[in-house]
Order: sequence, then C-alpha cells, then structure tokens
Amino acid sequence: MASSIPDIVISRLPIYLRALERLAQEGYEVTSSLELGRRLGISSAQIRKDLSHFGGFGKQGTGYRISFLVDQLRQVLKVENEWKVALVGAGDLGSAIARYKGFEDRGFHIACIFDSAPEKIGKQIDKYLIHAVDDIPSVIGAHAIKIAMVAVPAQAAQFVTDALVTAGVKAILNYAPINLKVPSDVHVQYIDPVIHLQRMTFYLNYTP
Amino acid sequence: MASSIPDIVISRLPIYLRALERLAQEGYEVTSSLELGRRLGISSAQIRKDLSHFGGFGKQGTGYRISFLVDQLRQVLKVENEWKVALVGAGDLGSAIARYKGFEDRGFHIACIFDSAPEKIGKQIDKYLIHAVDDIPSVIGAHAIKIAMVAVPAQAAQFVTDALVTAGVKAILNYAPINLKVPSDVHVQYIDPVIHLQRMTFYLNYTP
Repeated sequence: MASSIPDIVISRLPIYLRALERLAQEGYEVTSSLELGRRLGISSAQIRKDLSHFGGFGKQGTGYRISFLVDQLRQVLKVENEWKVALVGAGDLGSAIARYKGFEDRGFHIACIFDSAPEKIGKQIDKYLIHAVDDIPSVIGAHAIKIAMVAVPAQAAQFVTDALVTAGVKAILNYAPINLKVPSDVHVQYIDPVIHLQRMTFYLNYTP
Repeated sequence: MASSIPDIVISRLPIYLRALERLAQEGYEVTSSLELGRRLGISSAQIRKDLSHFGGFGKQGTGYRISFLVDQLRQVLKVENEWKVALVGAGDLGSAIARYKGFEDRGFHIACIFDSAPEKIGKQIDKYLIHAVDDIPSVIGAHAIKIAMVAVPAQAAQFVTDALVTAGVKAILNYAPINLKVPSDVHVQYIDPVIHLQRMTFYLNYTP
C-alpha cells in the first residue's frame, strides 16, 4: 500500500494528523472531511480522496472517528517509532531548535549537536553536548542516526550536508536559505518562512 | 481571477516560485512541468493544472519560459510589494529570525521587534530596536503593519496574538507549538519542524 501513495498525498498526511490531534485535544471524538477542510483550507473532496488511500477510514454521512484515524496516520507515518535526530549548528537558531518543546512527544529526539566553533565544542545546550563538526562521521555512525537538522549559515550548509550524507543520514531538514544537493536516496525538506509569508500576502490588501 | 483560485493551489505557488527562481539562478531559461514535478515531488499533471489558473503560461511541448512565469507568480503573490513585518520574541529564535538573510531580497522587512523581558527592551538585535510588548498597539499602528511573526514560548503566544490582531495585523506566522485562535479575516501559518520530519520518516526504514 504505502509505496503506491503519491508524494503529494504523503506531504499532507502530517497536516491531517496535527489537525486531528488538536481536535482530539479539544474533546472531539468524530469529525468530517468538511470540518477538516474548513480548518485546513483544503477542499473536503481532496481530503476524502487523500484518506481513501488507506481504505475504510470514514463512512459517508457518519464522519471519521478521530482516535482511529490518528492511530492509522501515526502508523503510516511511522510516528510510533522513536527517531534519533542530529542537529548541526549551535548558534541562535540551533539553540532555539535544541530547546523546542514540540519534538519529544511526537517521536523525535535530538541525539547530538555539532558546531564548528572551537569555543562551543564540549559545552552543552540544555542537556545536549556539542560535538565538533569533524566528529560527524563517528558520532552519527555510533548512534546509527538517519535524520539531521541543518541550522548553519548558508555558506556552510552544503559542506555539512555532504558530511551527514557520507555518514549515512537519509533525511535532512534544512533551515539554511539555500538549495542542497544530495543523492537521490536522501530526502530534504526546507524550513522557509518566506514561503509561508507569501502564502498569506496573496490575501492581503497592500498599502505602502 | 485571483479570488477564484483555490487555497490549496495558492499554497503551492510560493513553492513553484522558489523552484523557478533556483532554476533561473542555475542558468536555465526554460523548464517543463515534468522537470518542476521531479524537483518538487508533485505530479506534472498537478503542476499543469495549478498553473493553468493563470492562463497562457506554458505551451504543450515547448515548456515554460522561466522569467515570464517568475514575473507572473511574483505579481500574483504580491511579492513585488515591500511588506513590513513585526517580530514578537527576542530570545534565541527571535534573534535567529532577525538575523535571517532570506527576507530582504524576497520583499519582507522586519520593521520592529517586541519582547516582554525588561532587560531586553531598548536594546538591539542586529539593526532592530526591541520594544516592549505593551507597545504593540502604538508601534504596529504607527507603521500600519499587517504581518507579524510570533516567536515566543507557547504559553505567551495567544496573548501576543490577541494584541497583534487588535492592533490590525492580518497575517501571522506562528513558530510556537500551539494552535492560535484568530478572527476569520486573519490568516495564520505555522512553522512546525515536526510536520517536515514526518514527511520524511514515511520513506525511511526504521532500525531501533
């Protein structure tokens, strides 16, 4: 099943999961494609089609049982697993990421932090020890880490990425404002605030 | 035209724009829905359908002229305008955002920073003066700011959002890991690294 789901559908599943988990927190037990669509700005037809890839999730007229759908999506997205994540960059952004409260209860654990500044190496951010970038191969290898977040200046991002890929990382979340070149079996996602700002300016009236 | 474009299509336009700008930087003058699709993990049929909302962009067989398409998308998304943005939060994350190099050349300018910590108020991050959160109404009003980024701890995010909305902000980019409640004429986008991580773990083999 999984291999036949289009990438564009996969990319929406985490958004459905987050919306459903929020509905559950708000005390709802059942929802509809209409309600989900209203919250997410996605058409209800699109949502029904996306969720139909998993078969038997909802019934026309009765809606989706939230707890069941959450379980299914968590399984599909392998969120039940505990993933170790490497963080490269211990500046303002790296520090903010290391202290971010949203990872742990959603299956992601920062396992190590790397930086190139000699004065930072051996120090800690929160509970995490900062390693030298030169130690990426040995530390990533020892922990068998597959996922990394890159929070370094743009000019260092490709160098760091190459080291991570060589060490066996298969998924990179890149905060640096540049396009990374990686082999075809490595996944890259970008955190780009401008993309989100542009999605909103479309709707705004401009007054200089 | 603009009002008839579905939200889900609008949400993809900034991603097309970024991909096209990168292709232009790499020296390409023409591209195809196939090439764009390969780079973005979106089907070429979807891309052709999305771009057809703007009429006459591409011709079957000859592809899209990149410079023309970039101009059109920048106009549609109002990126040609210079938008002033307020930033709330001058901690690690706020500092990283204030120093982020990706805003200025893409039409967004941080106009003011707010924080609640007395020891930070009156100081600067980069070239930006830090104002008190209590001054949100007067400063936002004076600059006629419509867009804000929220980079405060989760427990402060709703309070800050209410102040921004009262002051006239219509678009909020929220970095805090909570769902914001806003009136229906205010747009909210979320920066959520976990969403991006989950989009990649789907494709990874898990070995504990």
